[in-house]
Amino acid sequence: MKSFLNVQDLGDLKAALAEAAELKANRFKYDTLGKNKTLLMVFFNNSLRTRLSTQKAAMNLGMNVIVLDVNAGAWKLETERGVVMDGDKSEHLLEAIPVMGSYCDIVGIRSFAGLSDRDYDYAETVYHQFEKYSGKPVFAMETATVHPLQAFADLITIAEHKRPHRPKVVLTWAPHPKSLPQAVPNSFAQWMVEADRQGLPLALDGAEQGIDFVITHPEGYELDPAFTRGARIEYDQQKAFEGADFVYAKNWSCPGIGRYAKDYGRILHDYHTMMQWTVDARHMAWTNDAHFMHCLPVRRGMIVTDDVIESPTSLVIPEAANRELSATVVLKHFLQEM
Amino acid sequence: MKSFLNVQDLGDLKAALAEAAELKANRFKYDTLGKNKTLLMVFFNNSLRTRLSTQKAAMNLGMNVIVLDVNAGAWKLETERGVVMDGDKSEHLLEAIPVMGSYCDIVGIRSFAGLSDRDYDYAETVYHQFEKYSGKPVFAMETATVHPLQAFADLITIAEHKRPHRPKVVLTWAPHPKSLPQAVPNSFAQWMVEADRQGLPLALDGAEQGIDFVITHPEGYELDPAFTRGARIEYDQQKAFEGADFVYAKNWSCPGIGRYAKDYGRILHDYHTMMQWTVDARHMAWTNDAHFMHCLPVRRGMIVTDDVIESPTSLVIPEAANRELSATVVLKHFLQEM
Amino acid sequence: MKSFLNVQDLGDLKAALAEAAELKANRFKYDTLGKNKTLLMVFFNNSLRTRLSTQKAAMNLGMNVIVLDVNAGAWKLETERGVVMDGDKSEHLLEAIPVMGSYCDIVGIRSFAGLSDRDYDYAETVYHQFEKYSGKPVFAMETATVHPLQAFADLITIAEHKRPHRPKVVLTWAPHPKSLPQAVPNSFAQWMVEADRQGLPLALDGAEQGIDFVITHPEGYELDPAFTRGARIEYDQQKAFEGADFVYAKNWSCPGIGRYAKDYGRILHDYHTMMQWTVDARHMAWTNDAHFMHCLPVRRGMIVTDDVIESPTSLVIPEAANRELSATVVLKHFLQEM
Repeated sequence: MKSFLNVQDLGDLKAALAEAAELKANRFKYDTLGKNKTLLMVFFNNSLRTRLSTQKAAMNLGMNVIVLDVNAGAWKLETERGVVMDGDKSEHLLEAIPVMGSYCDIVGIRSFAGLSDRDYDYAETVYHQFEKYSGKPVFAMETATVHPLQAFADLITIAEHKRPHRPKVVLTWAPHPKSLPQAVPNSFAQWMVEADRQGLPLALDGAEQGIDFVITHPEGYELDPAFTRGARIEYDQQKAFEGADFVYAKNWSCPGIGRYAKDYGRILHDYHTMMQWTVDARHMAWTNDAHFMHCLPVRRGMIVTDDVIESPTSLVIPEAANRELSATVVLKHFLQEM
Repeated sequence: MKSFLNVQDLGDLKAALAEAAELKANRFKYDTLGKNKTLLMVFFNNSLRTRLSTQKAAMNLGMNVIVLDVNAGAWKLETERGVVMDGDKSEHLLEAIPVMGSYCDIVGIRSFAGLSDRDYDYAETVYHQFEKYSGKPVFAMETATVHPLQAFADLITIAEHKRPHRPKVVLTWAPHPKSLPQAVPNSFAQWMVEADRQGLPLALDGAEQGIDFVITHPEGYELDPAFTRGARIEYDQQKAFEGADFVYAKNWSCPGIGRYAKDYGRILHDYHTMMQWTVDARHMAWTNDAHFMHCLPVRRGMIVTDDVIESPTSLVIPEAANRELSATVVLKHFLQEM
Repeated sequence: MKSFLNVQDLGDLKAALAEAAELKANRFKYDTLGKNKTLLMVFFNNSLRTRLSTQKAAMNLGMNVIVLDVNAGAWKLETERGVVMDGDKSEHLLEAIPVMGSYCDIVGIRSFAGLSDRDYDYAETVYHQFEKYSGKPVFAMETATVHPLQAFADLITIAEHKRPHRPKVVLTWAPHPKSLPQAVPNSFAQWMVEADRQGLPLALDGAEQGIDFVITHPEGYELDPAFTRGARIEYDQQKAFEGADFVYAKNWSCPGIGRYAKDYGRILHDYHTMMQWTVDARHMAWTNDAHFMHCLPVRRGMIVTDDVIESPTSLVIPEAANRELSATVVLKHFLQEM
């Protein structure tokens, strides 16, 4: 594995889930694997969970860690050739990236979508520049369009809370006061669809269950089909929730698909309409006593009510804790192939 | 030990001083005790000494360290339930704290007093939230009302500079241009009173000496009796200094006790009156050739004059250096009980 | 070695180059030398390469690392005695520096020139305060007037790309939109002159070659003779470039020598005149197929054109990568003398 951006990069998910379970039993089983190997974490945007869990994962494997916070304002990278750099950009990515790569063995990148230029965001320009010029394996710590460490942790969490039947997993749009990227729902959809394809999660007797995956959101929030790959969309939130075993809430701004192309990155509805989508007890009553999930940070009262997120079936904390496992597995793959 | 906030949390101070002396002789004696254990240091406020000395302490014990600087402006935590989080607070402490706790083994917290709401500050709201929700042992790296790592280092320093007789230790208020919290004087008083109760420091022959502890300050700066526990207050600075073996200078704002309740966090006197309290050679001449102490950072010319802080009996640097020892002992206690 | 500021501090350059080569072959050969030793890196200014490469170097040697970013605005150090510190400076260097020194074994300092007071800058006031008061070995991570880790990495790079003859190395001024310090050209000149004196680099057969070192710049940019030590200055850039084997480009502001004393820190020429000095293909055609070098970050289109910096003979990336080696050798020297 030279890059970790999409679910396909990890390969066999069944094996990956087994590795996560092995590491959960003993987080330090491979604590010499990363000896004298250095992880460089490059943050172009803020981070709490990813920052902490990925450092912890690297240390579990005995790696050294260097954290670099790139203040986007203070250190703007020029990306074009043929430019006279007499403005506010003091370095060109063609120098900065290979230099960063020269001091480490693996590079993690956090770089959010700007939400103004869809083509630029969906081309994953920054990530691919690191992939191309760093000379080292690279992984996404949430990039413009994906957050695979989160989606992998979500899959681990769903597998840990398996039910006797093929689980129904609902990804539901929920309200938020700001325009947010589509990285988390893109990856969640991509990983759920692929997990289903690979027959995961397994039943208690080891049989392949797969996932009955449904996405629900107001019209205009259709995710990019490259991620959803034909997943069912149900615009009626109640119908989507009926019989659900897992409800995964998340806000995202308009992905700009089809006739909504010009609305990319926008919030499409007024406050009142939006607030019908908050996941509350009334919504959860439609489900099969579903587990509530969210990647965090979460706006209470907007995304979800206090009673739902605090209920015994809420998985938001174990799900975040599993970020350590997903990052440890991914780093372990990189290290084992060096 | 599951929490380190007050002197009582550490228990037997004689044993703790012995541990500090043992570690001073060999800082790396327990350098495998913290293997595969992670310290998370959470800073809601700036730090120099605490940041460096606590990292050093953790590394002495072979721990991994993650430092998290929470810019209070960028990441405001919601603390109430039932709120629609559609404003500037993007995460609720009920999610943030257990998540932070899930990636580490011990959590250190720096969170200063706001000095506007005495009840909130003296309830140690932030610290107790970490204690309650992190699921991990927690210690104070200066919180709203206490700075126990400093007070423990101060006690170590006093014990190292013992005199043939029961020492007189004077905590003196001194001027400062800004309103400061009471954390340092609260803890210093609490630790001195408790050390006296336990008969510390010991004389050279091992006999219990205790401490003759006096607090001096202008009227209105009375510290909370929960910390001073009946310690003698002497409003006449000269009388307080007479015969002193250790002079511990510190500024603090009005603690808001009794009829000064409405003045909490304020500076009570004009510049000229305040400046009479600066510790200078004239003040020190009243003492028994006292050691000068201060927790640093110190404003020269306000708290103390250049000649006093630079004199051979000044202990400000050894006192700061002992912060490494106090932190190492505290972390060692946590680790040994895991 | 107790301080690393000038080339003389490292002593025998031939031995130092041999150490660099040994470490390049096995970066972890001395990975227990730094066990239980702590490097404190103090940044008064931003850093990318130095921050990453020096951390990497310390970790190669098994050291612990603490990084301290001192925001110059938030934490101003008082440097004078006899001052009443009632303004924006909350700590005096006479306390801050020994305290920092007490928590570590080696201190690295980054502190740029202010470019307004030449005497202050060229006295290396901040660095020498750390040298005097920290109680620990100190090294420059670019200070007011020097950047020896860069110059050492440059020498390593030149030695690695040796030619069959005594190489001609040209340090050329090049345009930049902002006033920059003279630290990099000062050190580069100092190291080239000393390398020549010591007969380095060696020829393939081990014979001493030395360096034919030339400096070229518009009038007024004469570097301090304390660094250039009689090195040849050629004001005609074309003549300087003729026959060059290595072209080292860098901008610097007026060093304030002789009749330009009052222009210290200024840019002396208009944009059009300045832009004649950009290193482009026309300039490089005058050379002996020279390697292009620059310390980075570099402004493309101002310092150098895209085609030159991207050409096969450009050494900017290997040169930056060698920062890890120069820092490892320097830290190794400190550790071996402890």
